[in-house]
Amino acid sequence: MRIALVAPSCRITPEAVERVRALAAAHFAEVELVVHPQCFLSDGHFAGSDAARADAFVEMANDSRIDALWFARGGYGSNRALEGVLPRLGPAAKGKTYLGYSDAGFMLGALYAAGIGQPVHGPMPGDINRVGGEAAVLRSLAWLAKRDPASLETSLRDRRPAAAFNLTILSHLLGTPWAPDLSGHVLMLEEIGEYMYRIDRALFHVTSDPMIRRVAGLKLGRCSDIPENDPDFIRNDVQVAEEWCARAGIPWLGVADIGHDIDNKVVPFGKVAR
Amino acid sequence: MRIALVAPSCRITPEAVERVRALAAAHFAEVELVVHPQCFLSDGHFAGSDAARADAFVEMANDSRIDALWFARGGYGSNRALEGVLPRLGPAAKGKTYLGYSDAGFMLGALYAAGIGQPVHGPMPGDINRVGGEAAVLRSLAWLAKRDPASLETSLRDRRPAAAFNLTILSHLLGTPWAPDLSGHVLMLEEIGEYMYRIDRALFHVTSDPMIRRVAGLKLGRCSDIPENDPDFIRNDVQVAEEWCARAGIPWLGVADIGHDIDNKVVPFGKVAR
Repeated sequence: MRIALVAPSCRITPEAVERVRALAAAHFAEVELVVHPQCFLSDGHFAGSDAARADAFVEMANDSRIDALWFARGGYGSNRALEGVLPRLGPAAKGKTYLGYSDAGFMLGALYAAGIGQPVHGPMPGDINRVGGEAAVLRSLAWLAKRDPASLETSLRDRRPAAAFNLTILSHLLGTPWAPDLSGHVLMLEEIGEYMYRIDRALFHVTSDPMIRRVAGLKLGRCSDIPENDPDFIRNDVQVAEEWCARAGIPWLGVADIGHDIDNKVVPFGKVAR
Repeated sequence: MRIALVAPSCRITPEAVERVRALAAAHFAEVELVVHPQCFLSDGHFAGSDAARADAFVEMANDSRIDALWFARGGYGSNRALEGVLPRLGPAAKGKTYLGYSDAGFMLGALYAAGIGQPVHGPMPGDINRVGGEAAVLRSLAWLAKRDPASLETSLRDRRPAAAFNLTILSHLLGTPWAPDLSGHVLMLEEIGEYMYRIDRALFHVTSDPMIRRVAGLKLGRCSDIPENDPDFIRNDVQVAEEWCARAGIPWLGVADIGHDIDNKVVPFGKVAR
């Protein structure tokens, strides 16, 4: 199978891609990585201009020889490419898997809203740079190559439709034309590098949305690298998530096994096809 | 006239309040400051519990002897008090002016959405702690005490309805039950302490909202204390605001004279009554 690497957010280094390529070759002989040269472009914060990032994504998504698009890494910027991507996706884009997380959630959410392909939350090639990151990268490859159930977040066993997002990304997607309807879904949220007051504020925003109030329930993934709040926020991430769920009438389902780390599990959007 | 000080977000120090009281006494003999003791409470991040902050706000808003509520300072937390405040406001709350900015935008926006009183963006007592902050505090007092037109943001002369928000606060208010309809308004946004990629992301979110796309136009106030973006974002705050307006079909109206500083001007929500 052919997996295309594209970078709708920030660029990845050739060195990181070579490590991922070697890992894939060693473990999944059936996988061919097709690395779009756009992954290595640089335009300030981004992996090339908005147009370059959109064009690469559309080229790979519309190529019938490609089975999946794998987001090289997150950072910021896939939202800037939405309007250059979504209207141009053709029939070949519909049969594909799209895998990433963090900032990629903008694109995954928009694809899910449009009913195009199978968006999947999971580790990206850029995770190879974490200590022990090979495990994360292999987890996504195992899902892409052979739908390995060991890659999945364990609570997906209950067969309800699910979706997973970075909390801040979902907050910034809600209300836009690209927001998916998550009614009836188990919603998993994770965060990194945000103060407790910001986690609290984003949870207020997300759980106050009328559409989000129709989810089947909320699970909180890991919120890592939380800077010290001054003064002490007293409540922690799990406590405020539970509190906002109670206020919003959203069933609180506990913690989820996702986050910005090497243990980040795979969460296909919608019902898991097995 | 009686101006009540309440603190729906973070606490203020008694020393700051005494400085504001002395300033008011020296310049506005007609003003009596009624300082609710809740302003000095402390509960972790907040000026007392959510209930204490809501109760103090409701008590002052429903007191017919009070003419205006002045938010002591911003920080974070007025969103947590919304559901404890809005449903409990009675007839006496409707004739009042409510003045603040930054985090207070949650409450100002919700009051405007509910058609309760006159929400006003402008300097708060806590601004006394800025170098030269007396000018900011006096500007709000002049508006509260005698509707001094010199306090107003100058573009309000064009007589269109207006509203002013901190960008991040508006982003987190949109889509919630407390978001006001700003169709036809000149919308002014300011920001402080956010990276350029975050300013860009919040502007994407705000300008992608269908309701916001019906504003009369957008003006950008000062975005101050922007941390250095790595890599360089290339575009600045005004450039990205203009770009998102163009993408969204929102008339770009240039810069506004508001921000987290001593020059922050007064912006009454809606049409200015003179």
